[in-house]
Amino acid sequence: MNFNPNRLVLLMHCPDQKGIIASVTEFIHQRNGNIIYIDQYVDRSQDAFFMRMVVEASNKTIDFIAFKNNFALELGVTFQLKCDFYQEERLPKMAVFVSKYDHCLYDILSQQRSGKLNCEIPFIISNHKDLEGIAKQFEIPFYHIAVSKENKKEAEEKQLEILKQYQVDFIVLARYMQIVSSKLIDLYSSKIINIHHSFLPAFPGAKPYHSALNRGVKIIGATSHYVTEELDAGPIIEQDIVRVSHEHDVKDLIDKGQDLERMVLLRGLKLHCDRKIMVYNNKTVVFN
Amino acid sequence: MNFNPNRLVLLMHCPDQKGIIASVTEFIHQRNGNIIYIDQYVDRSQDAFFMRMVVEASNKTIDFIAFKNNFALELGVTFQLKCDFYQEERLPKMAVFVSKYDHCLYDILSQQRSGKLNCEIPFIISNHKDLEGIAKQFEIPFYHIAVSKENKKEAEEKQLEILKQYQVDFIVLARYMQIVSSKLIDLYSSKIINIHHSFLPAFPGAKPYHSALNRGVKIIGATSHYVTEELDAGPIIEQDIVRVSHEHDVKDLIDKGQDLERMVLLRGLKLHCDRKIMVYNNKTVVFN
Amino acid sequence: MNFNPNRLVLLMHCPDQKGIIASVTEFIHQRNGNIIYIDQYVDRSQDAFFMRMVVEASNKTIDFIAFKNNFALELGVTFQLKCDFYQEERLPKMAVFVSKYDHCLYDILSQQRSGKLNCEIPFIISNHKDLEGIAKQFEIPFYHIAVSKENKKEAEEKQLEILKQYQVDFIVLARYMQIVSSKLIDLYSSKIINIHHSFLPAFPGAKPYHSALNRGVKIIGATSHYVTEELDAGPIIEQDIVRVSHEHDVKDLIDKGQDLERMVLLRGLKLHCDRKIMVYNNKTVVFN
Amino acid sequence: MNFNPNRLVLLMHCPDQKGIIASVTEFIHQRNGNIIYIDQYVDRSQDAFFMRMVVEASNKTIDFIAFKNNFALELGVTFQLKCDFYQEERLPKMAVFVSKYDHCLYDILSQQRSGKLNCEIPFIISNHKDLEGIAKQFEIPFYHIAVSKENKKEAEEKQLEILKQYQVDFIVLARYMQIVSSKLIDLYSSKIINIHHSFLPAFPGAKPYHSALNRGVKIIGATSHYVTEELDAGPIIEQDIVRVSHEHDVKDLIDKGQDLERMVLLRGLKLHCDRKIMVYNNKTVVFN
Repeated sequence: MNFNPNRLVLLMHCPDQKGIIASVTEFIHQRNGNIIYIDQYVDRSQDAFFMRMVVEASNKTIDFIAFKNNFALELGVTFQLKCDFYQEERLPKMAVFVSKYDHCLYDILSQQRSGKLNCEIPFIISNHKDLEGIAKQFEIPFYHIAVSKENKKEAEEKQLEILKQYQVDFIVLARYMQIVSSKLIDLYSSKIINIHHSFLPAFPGAKPYHSALNRGVKIIGATSHYVTEELDAGPIIEQDIVRVSHEHDVKDLIDKGQDLERMVLLRGLKLHCDRKIMVYNNKTVVFN
Repeated sequence: MNFNPNRLVLLMHCPDQKGIIASVTEFIHQRNGNIIYIDQYVDRSQDAFFMRMVVEASNKTIDFIAFKNNFALELGVTFQLKCDFYQEERLPKMAVFVSKYDHCLYDILSQQRSGKLNCEIPFIISNHKDLEGIAKQFEIPFYHIAVSKENKKEAEEKQLEILKQYQVDFIVLARYMQIVSSKLIDLYSSKIINIHHSFLPAFPGAKPYHSALNRGVKIIGATSHYVTEELDAGPIIEQDIVRVSHEHDVKDLIDKGQDLERMVLLRGLKLHCDRKIMVYNNKTVVFN
Repeated sequence: MNFNPNRLVLLMHCPDQKGIIASVTEFIHQRNGNIIYIDQYVDRSQDAFFMRMVVEASNKTIDFIAFKNNFALELGVTFQLKCDFYQEERLPKMAVFVSKYDHCLYDILSQQRSGKLNCEIPFIISNHKDLEGIAKQFEIPFYHIAVSKENKKEAEEKQLEILKQYQVDFIVLARYMQIVSSKLIDLYSSKIINIHHSFLPAFPGAKPYHSALNRGVKIIGATSHYVTEELDAGPIIEQDIVRVSHEHDVKDLIDKGQDLERMVLLRGLKLHCDRKIMVYNNKTVVFN
Repeated sequence: MNFNPNRLVLLMHCPDQKGIIASVTEFIHQRNGNIIYIDQYVDRSQDAFFMRMVVEASNKTIDFIAFKNNFALELGVTFQLKCDFYQEERLPKMAVFVSKYDHCLYDILSQQRSGKLNCEIPFIISNHKDLEGIAKQFEIPFYHIAVSKENKKEAEEKQLEILKQYQVDFIVLARYMQIVSSKLIDLYSSKIINIHHSFLPAFPGAKPYHSALNRGVKIIGATSHYVTEELDAGPIIEQDIVRVSHEHDVKDLIDKGQDLERMVLLRGLKLHCDRKIMVYNNKTVVFN
């Protein structure tokens, strides 16, 4: 896959008002930008406007800094418009946190190698050594940081150090079986993606497959979401389900569920890497 | 559709043990019965055995009473086997309870008329008059029994009287917006089917679509289940879901959801009418 | 449901070029129009631009004729933009063609009565008398026009006469078991919606459920599409599927399939009635 | 995962007749076998009976040879019953054929390593060198056998030699972009599994995603099936679909489709490895 150095992704939001689309598209045209993609969404209950654009510079080089500054001056002020700018060629750096389950890790690494997951993976952190072999197989640095009740704070400091050292953009908890601290959540707000093995808000917390079996549900699910202070209550990115029946025991649910988990996590990660998600009001706006 | 007077449906369960299938099939063969359908399920965690059979008499007439008695004497005792017997030609009588929503009612009545829902519908009970026109359209008796805080008990007595008068086999709450009493639930245990407009156990109780919107889920669902004392906590018969996105407001969720509700309710009713469901441990065993 | 007399739906398309969105939104704002909905799509392989807008007049009355004329003069010329205008309050008139199957007919009539299908249904035409009772039940005129090899042309003339008399906007073939003529297709181009009981392009033509069984597929489907000259080859509006297994015989496939048929047809009709579909290159652009 | 050396999987079929289940279950009980799983299917249109059983020996060791011989003598003759016997602990050996696409290969290898795909993978054969690195990563022998019009026969002889040398049980074509010869198909009848990137029978042959785009379908699919002489016409094992819209170009379809391909192929392989599939009449009977 080739990424275009002259292509920008813009994620913007502001109070809804007349003339925003006209003004923004006009601003782009004046600078010889081609609008490759445009989609917007208005939340009428909140009078909030959201827009995603992909813009390509017609001329060979684009003065990214000037573009940003002018945008803020002209549109930011007029419309109280806030915008995040991403250069398409600059791939985000994703830290991978795992414990013992390997299905999500395998999927993340192989999809990234296949060119399907547009990010860099500078390292893997785990509180167990079980998956070190997979890290080696894919030649990615593996940091084993054991976590216990006693060393929890210390362990987290080590994690933070590594995250900073590699200038990580976001974190995936790929079945990482520890609750991350408020400090980490604050530092990486809307930048930690978790996979939970149920269709939230059903069965939050531990052992959702056992709970699902016990309740006798006919569908099980998985949910990828951003991590917030409250456990399994953050903005949902993606969900999917699979049918089950009375014939399935807990092992069957886990088997079926793990296939869901890796798919739902990967879809969430792809959307995040491609800058298609905006977080707002503990919900996500997900552009196509 | 023609129902066969010589065809029986058998739903049986007992502690799991060797030789049950062999003994039951042998019993049938000795009486010149053809096994049209056989499926069984063993819950290993509970050592419980379940089986559904459809049996057809080879000779023109079958002595139903003798068959039942011998079955109980020979197999019931040996295996502690309990069995429900249904003659296929004897359609169950279903009472329909509604309030103001018409989508489930329309579906129930038209599917029954199309010959897709194998039951008799002797009457409709409602706490509102809104849907009386539909009852007339389909020429089904309509009983308006208003329910208020004050007359709750009295209203229920009227309902029970009508249910007895018509010798109803089971009840469907087709978006009936009242909580039914313990007395009714006891009298029709595992015989009251409700449709709840969420994928339970998520969003039980009132206004699930509003809660779903608020939580920002990416799928909504519907659940048909047997009514038990605890609200929306009875054995689940059938569930299904539909994808939604940030673009959908509560009206959209209701629109999409109502299509789910009628499908999921109808599938549950068909399974019940065709005697394909066994209830056990607050769960359902649903045969194909 | 209340329809807003001051609300317009606009479906427009033109060659893709810079500045269209800006110009159109500017045009609306100058006339004190609120953009309630806007979505656009660019087919890059064809350099074709499509947009759907819902516009509401801020002032109490909108001069619809003037609006249309100015739109054509200002934007139509500049951008080679073609636009269809629909007043939201003016519901389309839909003719229903049926034969003997009642499941789609029941669904259409009850959904329209429930206020879920935004159209008028002035009459039903059938080549058989079987469904006349349902027409009576819903108090809709029923025209029985028998069709045979001999009277085919004559029968069609009668149909056309009735269609004109009622000033029908579009036609639904709700399991109408006759091939409609080129003349009708030409007169109602992109205005005849058919339901086919397979996931096209698999199993076009007669007896798709038998073919599906024979081929041993694990999913069956249904497709709603606009009718064109070539059988079952017109622009696809909506499709859906359901899982099947070796256990299902042809009767089971038909039962499962008919539930799909009515859902997929209704979804297609709703999209058409709500002016969310544009036809192009034998494909559909379907807005949310 | 631990496989039980005293556990057998039996796949049997015969003309349908009375008393089969009773006789087979009786045969097992007489030998102190526990029936862990039993499911049967009768194709009434063909009067054909199919059954899958999992049997566990109560005593520590089972005389596998004697069991098979007695089964054939007692039941095989009486009922014209044919049966395949598999020891659960003996994992099947699967040869992997690939070309340039890596997504299915990654999934197969990582799922096998995770203990989700119960087989041995003795080697990978490819007509290209592109995926050699992945073979190395997973430490699996990789044979590059280039195939051209000129050397087709010779190349196949090499393939056959390797297949024999490793005593392969079955073959997966994991997006292997060559048509395999009749000779190979004959030798491995119902033992070559292919993944086709469409919901067959729609879009057989080359470039199904392009054809799907061109036809304007709203769903795309993938199909895993056994390879037979006729291209993409063999017994279907598993299918699944994903919704698409006018917004998706061919690259989007490929991206979405490849996720389907790997899931549908893996599900098919798992069913085959777990001996849950019977092939019959160019269709599959797939037990749960």
